[in-house]
Amino acid sequence: MKIDILKPVLVSNKERAKENRVFFDKSNSLVLNIIGSPGSGKTSVIENIVKRLKSRFKILVIEGDIKGSIDSERLNKLKIDTIQINTQTECHLDAFMIAQTLPKVDKPYDLILIENVGNLVCPAEFEVGEDYKIAVLSTPEGDDKPIKYPLLFHLAKVVIINKIDLLPHLDFNLKKAKKNIVDKNPKAIIFVVSAKNGRGFDKLVDFIKKELAKKKIKV
Amino acid sequence: MKIDILKPVLVSNKERAKENRVFFDKSNSLVLNIIGSPGSGKTSVIENIVKRLKSRFKILVIEGDIKGSIDSERLNKLKIDTIQINTQTECHLDAFMIAQTLPKVDKPYDLILIENVGNLVCPAEFEVGEDYKIAVLSTPEGDDKPIKYPLLFHLAKVVIINKIDLLPHLDFNLKKAKKNIVDKNPKAIIFVVSAKNGRGFDKLVDFIKKELAKKKIKV
Repeated sequence: MKIDILKPVLVSNKERAKENRVFFDKSNSLVLNIIGSPGSGKTSVIENIVKRLKSRFKILVIEGDIKGSIDSERLNKLKIDTIQINTQTECHLDAFMIAQTLPKVDKPYDLILIENVGNLVCPAEFEVGEDYKIAVLSTPEGDDKPIKYPLLFHLAKVVIINKIDLLPHLDFNLKKAKKNIVDKNPKAIIFVVSAKNGRGFDKLVDFIKKELAKKKIKV
Repeated sequence: MKIDILKPVLVSNKERAKENRVFFDKSNSLVLNIIGSPGSGKTSVIENIVKRLKSRFKILVIEGDIKGSIDSERLNKLKIDTIQINTQTECHLDAFMIAQTLPKVDKPYDLILIENVGNLVCPAEFEVGEDYKIAVLSTPEGDDKPIKYPLLFHLAKVVIINKIDLLPHLDFNLKKAKKNIVDKNPKAIIFVVSAKNGRGFDKLVDFIKKELAKKKIKV
């Protein structure tokens, strides 16, 4: 029963995502849809990216949470623009929710980071008009997660393995984790980072800078 | 739009959950619906409980996963009965899925542990006929999760804070976590454990034994 319902929902969502994309293309914005489990460190990853790029690029963060604004309050401290979406009961952001934010996007941003609701499953199914999805997997979650939650890892262009600082205290096999990701998505670009001590972010940020440069060339 | 669809789904789910409950009541089974993020340690918690109780009680584990059978293979090593449900695209177990397993439940079990799909959001909305929900929160996820994912913590009779062994390496405030849980659910019964080294499980298992004893008295 639910599958029959979900299909039309996803089709209309896809149409709306295309309209969002037209909006983002007008300003050559690079839009990244960041997806991961609760507590995988999505907000901390965003903080690290923002700190390294905010002096050179105009950045907006759209924060998706079921309730509250803990994360956007954290990001406001970095003096960047944020928009908070509270999904209430919904376990993911969809294209219609992002569409509702667009009237508030009153200037062209270089980089729009969308932090999705903490969930490895549902957010992967709903496009929002992003350039691509970034999956955040943290080491305490275990190296088997790409096998158990395959859709996100199949779809994500970039996978960030976070909390690498905890590796000595965990039974997390980094090689196995990378293999499990590549098995689901041979083209996945993997970055290994610690949002706590900043390790690995220079490489990730270099990659994002190159993507931003490509957008500018298009102008 | 989706909310209008979800309501009747939840109503019919609730009806089916009641029918499952009738089945479980016939055998005086204690049925626990275990819910937590991917990698919070649900399977490891179940392993710890099973090891301590399997000599005295008949135990069944129903494993919910989107794909694969990694967890039920782990549990089969403990020589207990397991049933694997693969939800394919669904991000939670529902009462209809559990109903499909009942014809396979061919003897009365004292304890039925249901490991839900790794997800802090959706599984909380769907009753499956359980006695009660157990929320598993692991320390690397952060002490703010009860604020951000309130429904599960509001509904769960028991909250297990797992991976307490990692505390020295994290910015996790145990007092704050407990306060955040109690704010959502003043009656929550909280256990602090490490599924890695077994700390805290004696208390948890004593609690479950008392619950099992209540069921037996009813016979």
